[in-house]
Amino acid sequence: MASAPRALAILGSTGSVGEQTLAVVERFPERYRVSALAAGRRIEKLAEQVRRFRPELVAVAEEAGARELAARLGPAAPPIAVGPEGLVRVGEHASELVVSALVGAVGLAPTLAAIRAGRDIALANKEVLVMAGALVLREVRAHGVSLLPVDSEHSAIFQALAGQRREDVARLVLTASGGPFRTWSEREIAGATVEQALRHPNWDMGPKITIDSATLMNKGLEVIEARWLFDVPPEQVDVVVHPQSIVHSLVEFVDGSVLAQLGLPDMRVPIAVALAHPERLPLELPRLDLAAIGQLSFEVPDRKRFPCLDLAYAALALSEAAPAVLNAANEVSVAAFLAGRIAFPAIAAANGAVLEAHAAQRGGARLRDLDDVLEADRFGRAEAEAWLARSGEVR
Amino acid sequence: MASAPRALAILGSTGSVGEQTLAVVERFPERYRVSALAAGRRIEKLAEQVRRFRPELVAVAEEAGARELAARLGPAAPPIAVGPEGLVRVGEHASELVVSALVGAVGLAPTLAAIRAGRDIALANKEVLVMAGALVLREVRAHGVSLLPVDSEHSAIFQALAGQRREDVARLVLTASGGPFRTWSEREIAGATVEQALRHPNWDMGPKITIDSATLMNKGLEVIEARWLFDVPPEQVDVVVHPQSIVHSLVEFVDGSVLAQLGLPDMRVPIAVALAHPERLPLELPRLDLAAIGQLSFEVPDRKRFPCLDLAYAALALSEAAPAVLNAANEVSVAAFLAGRIAFPAIAAANGAVLEAHAAQRGGARLRDLDDVLEADRFGRAEAEAWLARSGEVR
Repeated sequence: MASAPRALAILGSTGSVGEQTLAVVERFPERYRVSALAAGRRIEKLAEQVRRFRPELVAVAEEAGARELAARLGPAAPPIAVGPEGLVRVGEHASELVVSALVGAVGLAPTLAAIRAGRDIALANKEVLVMAGALVLREVRAHGVSLLPVDSEHSAIFQALAGQRREDVARLVLTASGGPFRTWSEREIAGATVEQALRHPNWDMGPKITIDSATLMNKGLEVIEARWLFDVPPEQVDVVVHPQSIVHSLVEFVDGSVLAQLGLPDMRVPIAVALAHPERLPLELPRLDLAAIGQLSFEVPDRKRFPCLDLAYAALALSEAAPAVLNAANEVSVAAFLAGRIAFPAIAAANGAVLEAHAAQRGGARLRDLDDVLEADRFGRAEAEAWLARSGEVR
Repeated sequence: MASAPRALAILGSTGSVGEQTLAVVERFPERYRVSALAAGRRIEKLAEQVRRFRPELVAVAEEAGARELAARLGPAAPPIAVGPEGLVRVGEHASELVVSALVGAVGLAPTLAAIRAGRDIALANKEVLVMAGALVLREVRAHGVSLLPVDSEHSAIFQALAGQRREDVARLVLTASGGPFRTWSEREIAGATVEQALRHPNWDMGPKITIDSATLMNKGLEVIEARWLFDVPPEQVDVVVHPQSIVHSLVEFVDGSVLAQLGLPDMRVPIAVALAHPERLPLELPRLDLAAIGQLSFEVPDRKRFPCLDLAYAALALSEAAPAVLNAANEVSVAAFLAGRIAFPAIAAANGAVLEAHAAQRGGARLRDLDDVLEADRFGRAEAEAWLARSGEVR
């Protein structure tokens, strides 16, 4: 155990990962303290967190939120920063680990700022590596910081790689639940409703990521993350469908041996792994009882019924910018599906068309800086909207 | 990769593990060379190994064997040592790793000699830890050597523990195939024939260990090995039945995370892991395809139908000597079953009765030296024979 508590800065403290991170901090006050918190618009919850954890700095999205927070906290309020600059200040604030748990592109700049300030990163924000993987990897190397994954699949791989040499790795295998349409025919999937797509079998998540789980785009985005997080070529990242979501992912080594991490689905485990590495925290969670679970099953993902998975590999092969383009297109197409504007298969069709447009117009584009990332994001969104407009409201 | 090949001494070079070890050496001549070989009576095979691997010393069981080997090798013959002293000379011979792959108590003295000579040990000989665990653990600590397991279950745990802190381990979970009688009723098991007991579902092994697999005594002996090999209290070693033998064992940590090692059943993997640690060898074996396997299942071992498992825990609780007593009793009772002298359930009955006799007569016996181990072995054999005599030929 460290002699003094480690200082954590949390980007996205009022979200699910942020709150569960704070629950771990509260359980182990001798190990962790909070040096800075950043949230968006949930001011009441943030005020409560500030009272409990006494950070030296907080950041909120808007001036109005800052005023409300100051009023709620009174004279005990710490300095309150605002907007994108506020997030960057939290990322750069003195800490030993920055928990990057914002959702979406908004987390990119503060996470890059934290890396450039030499902070280790516990990474829950998928977009950081999906959109800017090549750029982030270069910065991580240049500043010699650690990137610790906070999601069950990448944490599983991270844990399985402990004590192993990278050159002995043959393959990373991400497990996928297969989503609600795993056993549906192509025709049934074509008629899937929003309600049906939102029924995820194992994890309780927001609507966007639940749809991504139904299309397997989520797993494709995780392939992209894994490629950068573990610095392996895409052809060494594979996916196997595992409906029970107990084996969180696996690593195959050159001697044919495979190491896997298993557990009940609980985000506190990957959070605790990232916070405590290379130690572990006694979490007192319900223990995995394999005999009670009985069966674990595995199948090959059907790339025909779920074409989004291959789009991720295609994006990695296209350019450094293509994953950001794909991610942006997917946000637009999933929103269109959730709004009832398009049918379920049109999500993949739109994403694929946007990726083709990128290949035709900007193939090979590199990510020199954050502007390049945001430009790729804009391109993906605009092309997806154009595709939707061309295709009409297809429902 | 090491700059010079590592020197291996192999105790039991003509057995299955010995031969597969030499196959690995042959595949990686830039990494390994053979400094000494010891075998028993398979002189022709040993002569061939000596010609191929050119050890500096060989040992055989008997003078006649030594003469035959000398005649076969002619002037190129290295020094040939004989008998138990010959084995000890091979254990002590200059090497960087001693592969302890003899079968039975005969491997105890040379393995202890190798430990005392400061050699790291790749351990395939179950009896070393089953009979003399407490003694071996003290010697390993005193001489600061590494004990590297060469069997699929303990190698799995060894691999899952890499890069982890021992104090973070909550539980070791050994997997058991469940043997041929996994789904049989107690009454059916009572009438099991030798032929039925010899049908192991997954591994092709000798008759003694196949019967041990049918009684779950084998798993009990592995619990004893794990207790010493990983220096954990017996209550932290658990067993789960896993008929497919793909998950070779698991480690549960205090944060609820579980790491497992998986693979196709192939002894070359644990051999290569022990030889190459902390590196891995590119073995070019068929790769594990979980989707092709489809289902992995797990169940609680039935301690009523398979009482030998609990006898192992009882032995660990009784005394340092009790596991050696149990092991000896089990050798006698299994031989009696294989000879058609007793019914299948009498194996456990005999083993249990001998353990009770040990508790009554010598409870708490420590293992100060090899003589104490051999005395416990003699006691177990004598008591088992006496039990068999008292019980009559119960078939």
